[in-house]
Amino acid sequence: MGKKEVQTGKASIQFAEGPQIIGSASVVGKKEGEGPLAERFDVIEPDPMVGCDNWEEAESALQKEAADLAIEKAGIVRSELRYLFAGDLLGQLIATSFGTVDLELPIFGLYGACSTIGEALCLGAMTVEAGYAEYVMSMASSHFASAEKQFRFPLEYGNQRPLSTTWTVTGCGSFVLGRKGGSVRISGITPGKIVDMGLRDSMNMGACMAPAASDTILRNFEDFGRGPEDYDRIITGDLGKVGQKILLDFMKSSGYDISGRHMDCGIEIFDSESQDTHSGGSGCGCSAVVLASFILPKLESGEWRRVLFLPTGALLSSTSYNEGRSVPGIAHGVVLESVDVRAASGGRL
Amino acid sequence: MGKKEVQTGKASIQFAEGPQIIGSASVVGKKEGEGPLAERFDVIEPDPMVGCDNWEEAESALQKEAADLAIEKAGIVRSELRYLFAGDLLGQLIATSFGTVDLELPIFGLYGACSTIGEALCLGAMTVEAGYAEYVMSMASSHFASAEKQFRFPLEYGNQRPLSTTWTVTGCGSFVLGRKGGSVRISGITPGKIVDMGLRDSMNMGACMAPAASDTILRNFEDFGRGPEDYDRIITGDLGKVGQKILLDFMKSSGYDISGRHMDCGIEIFDSESQDTHSGGSGCGCSAVVLASFILPKLESGEWRRVLFLPTGALLSSTSYNEGRSVPGIAHGVVLESVDVRAASGGRL
Repeated sequence: MGKKEVQTGKASIQFAEGPQIIGSASVVGKKEGEGPLAERFDVIEPDPMVGCDNWEEAESALQKEAADLAIEKAGIVRSELRYLFAGDLLGQLIATSFGTVDLELPIFGLYGACSTIGEALCLGAMTVEAGYAEYVMSMASSHFASAEKQFRFPLEYGNQRPLSTTWTVTGCGSFVLGRKGGSVRISGITPGKIVDMGLRDSMNMGACMAPAASDTILRNFEDFGRGPEDYDRIITGDLGKVGQKILLDFMKSSGYDISGRHMDCGIEIFDSESQDTHSGGSGCGCSAVVLASFILPKLESGEWRRVLFLPTGALLSSTSYNEGRSVPGIAHGVVLESVDVRAASGGRL
Repeated sequence: MGKKEVQTGKASIQFAEGPQIIGSASVVGKKEGEGPLAERFDVIEPDPMVGCDNWEEAESALQKEAADLAIEKAGIVRSELRYLFAGDLLGQLIATSFGTVDLELPIFGLYGACSTIGEALCLGAMTVEAGYAEYVMSMASSHFASAEKQFRFPLEYGNQRPLSTTWTVTGCGSFVLGRKGGSVRISGITPGKIVDMGLRDSMNMGACMAPAASDTILRNFEDFGRGPEDYDRIITGDLGKVGQKILLDFMKSSGYDISGRHMDCGIEIFDSESQDTHSGGSGCGCSAVVLASFILPKLESGEWRRVLFLPTGALLSSTSYNEGRSVPGIAHGVVLESVDVRAASGGRL
């Protein structure tokens, strides 16, 4: 229990133990499987319908597959999981409701737009650290076609997309958290505030989310007494190339140069030149599958020792967009460390 | 820290301390203010637009008002709150995103349909009990007109509603949780599973949710070794009259007669005869405002000593409905006790 280490008046929690990620899985679609991370994903589904009747069911199928695989890789059985923290982008979380019903677990349904896996890891880690559960699952998904239908235009319409847009990732990332048995620990969290700078362009979500990412990074630095040099990488969710520039500018104006350490899952997952994905990838699935496939292995191998992982979300709906309202952003920070970092530092970190 | 009291392999958590509700507020609309609980609400807003330009903004305005009032009644200032757990019924939680941005708090966005205040109280209580925060806020809202627009027909269409339908409550309930200083304690929780019996009638949500309510009640009885006689009341969220009958039948077939102790917030909030609300009230706001206005005072006065509060949710969207899919249900259980119960029993409860 980290009671005495909670930093009141601030946003962050430093865990005394630090729940470990003991199993993870990434299941993605065809386009993601043609991108730069192709070799790293656990499963590439060639059929956008995943054998189902519609895209929402297909997204649910990705969740089922990722959940089962993460459980298998964790070396536990489903009934050992105590709680599920999960969400998606769709109205009323229908991909999650139908995708997780067969897990038969008490579920906390979460919505944080594309930051959802950050929210799920924060709450999952808090739950395990406090001793409320031996094992929990954190999961988030998105699907290009179900998201386009929900937020934008019918695919048949073939609308042109401005260069500032991102491409919703078809994929699900699933994570089993436990007290021990993993190679990567969640050593702390910085849950994010909603930041609304009044931006209204839903075709430029990177710009809408960058201020929120900056806000959470700065609070993380302040709460933990750290700077960019304390992290091997600072990795946002889906700012894309447009949002990345804004974030680096924001950080610079606050006195921090993070340009050498910043990565963005949305930039990593697609080759924007050959894949026509413009600013980058996005969606709840984007940061979730890049975490499972790319970030965790670097931490497991010790190539990276400590990473600040910041899934970012643009809090809009078609209703609020049509009413001419702004697009607030949010970013949830999760500090990930190689398990041996603690040993190397004598447990003082 | 309740570590040793966590009952693994089951769903429930028994808290060692039990976070207390130290401030609460109910803000409702005109129709709710004409119902049987009129005298008990903190604020009745006569204007369905609450002075705003559209219903979604109006719902956000209810949240702002309820949050401010709950903070005031708790005798704290906003900056003493550490985390916010909140949600609503709308796609992508826009009532909450725009309604809570001014609170400037790290937020966990939640979706559990009309069970959302149960989910918010569970996570809020877990957070306070574990020592992660001194004070947190749990909140949920709904608005008749924003919900009709989201889920059903344009109001101008004037569709007829079957007698099994419920009427979405316009209202927001907000709760400040802390370690001490209240008269009601959250002594334990039973987070719910998604239960899908294959029912497809979105105009009969009571029937869709009753099996989930029954599932959570039975698990609560089992996990805590209790029966109906251990609760002064077992209070569901918005089953309405149709759902209530089904719940009582389900419970009877499992060997429990809860008919003498069961109440439903949806049945209490409207006078179905004079208010034309058919089966009862519903919506995230329904159980939240009935908790704040009606249930908590009965526990504070000692008239009731222990209540099982079970907000219920129907997990559908217009997309899943139009695709002909079922309506899964969920119910999150929260055990509420008069603070003096513990003293009276020598702390053995």
